[in-house]
Amino acid sequence: MLFRQFFDATSSTYTYLLASGKGREGLIIDPVKEQANQYLTAIEQLDLKLVRAIDTHTHADHVTALGDLREATGCMTLMGEFTQAECVSAHVSEDDIVDVDGIKLRAIYTPGHTNESFSFLLDPDKPKGVFTGDVLLIRGTGRTDFQGGDPHRSWDSIVNKLFFLPEDTLLWPAHDYKGWTASSIGEEKAHNPRLAGKTEAEYVEIMRNLHLPDPKLMDVAIPANLACGRG
Amino acid sequence: MLFRQFFDATSSTYTYLLASGKGREGLIIDPVKEQANQYLTAIEQLDLKLVRAIDTHTHADHVTALGDLREATGCMTLMGEFTQAECVSAHVSEDDIVDVDGIKLRAIYTPGHTNESFSFLLDPDKPKGVFTGDVLLIRGTGRTDFQGGDPHRSWDSIVNKLFFLPEDTLLWPAHDYKGWTASSIGEEKAHNPRLAGKTEAEYVEIMRNLHLPDPKLMDVAIPANLACGRG
Repeated sequence: MLFRQFFDATSSTYTYLLASGKGREGLIIDPVKEQANQYLTAIEQLDLKLVRAIDTHTHADHVTALGDLREATGCMTLMGEFTQAECVSAHVSEDDIVDVDGIKLRAIYTPGHTNESFSFLLDPDKPKGVFTGDVLLIRGTGRTDFQGGDPHRSWDSIVNKLFFLPEDTLLWPAHDYKGWTASSIGEEKAHNPRLAGKTEAEYVEIMRNLHLPDPKLMDVAIPANLACGRG
Repeated sequence: MLFRQFFDATSSTYTYLLASGKGREGLIIDPVKEQANQYLTAIEQLDLKLVRAIDTHTHADHVTALGDLREATGCMTLMGEFTQAECVSAHVSEDDIVDVDGIKLRAIYTPGHTNESFSFLLDPDKPKGVFTGDVLLIRGTGRTDFQGGDPHRSWDSIVNKLFFLPEDTLLWPAHDYKGWTASSIGEEKAHNPRLAGKTEAEYVEIMRNLHLPDPKLMDVAIPANLACGRG
């Protein structure tokens, strides 16, 4: 399998490019508009045909490259069924399988950071890794104070869905701010400081007391992303 | 296998932590002093026993964590046989095998960026990937204008050694500045702009005309690294 992780240093975003191999159809998850040319270079040099560009959710901290990638490659843009983005050409619901030339992703509805976030499980028959967007991060979790976020739903998505995946399932989030590039479900169950040994009430209390400033790009990014970054 | 790549945003350095699995002995390649606590957290949470800390070469752009990690874990520090760093506890020569609890690395002498740089091939019987330090980067190569660097030797290390590895061998460099986290030998043969379709004379001309400023940390990093970052 061809698996490439890219990092956008400005927004600390991880983007994932996957295909069964060189010369095959491929898909990309959580691409950043400013990096679109980097992805297109990789896609061309690896001789891939991009057929799906996926956002796990409507991002508030960067503008998506979905629209630009569709324009450049003719790929389908894909998000979860509850997105407000009208420009998206395909939607997934719980347990839908996205199958791109042998690469299989199972859609898992994981609200909490936003009310329309999905995670995507790679190789659902023998779970290899899960793309969690912002709901579950490495030793952290995505904020729950805007865009329909809800700490109870975040807890439920993580503890009652993601934590039921096999412990050695790798975790590939949409962000990390400390230089970590991957984790695993087992690691987060044991060592995520917001979750390990905590009750739901304690988690909700933690999330309600974060008092984070709004993302710098929020007022630009959300409307832009509802238009697939082409607004 | 447990494989973790870390990123130090200040120096754009990639560091690699490897082990056969949780609870096993592990090794680390090109660790950055400022990130030592991040690695120690990962090592503790993954229940690893760090037994080797390896520098591919004497870095000029960041201070190594070799000394700090040895102090914290009792691991052996390891570099190539031509290093001037007197604090290193073990040295490797061409084709030596570093074997840590089933993780095997073959040492490949690859001078050019410095005169003492080694690369390390993971799983030499069935090459999986190669840690190249700074000699071969993703779509680039390490500068050759100080620390015994030499563009002819860089060409020879890359074209006559690394490019003879199987094309699907992954490339894991010590740096990237554009957000790419991995490549492959085949990709670099085909698409590295300094090497693909170039002659040795053309490559040498390119490298001699880069006119890069010295790394900001050079005057601090080199003497510090000769003392394993503990000077």
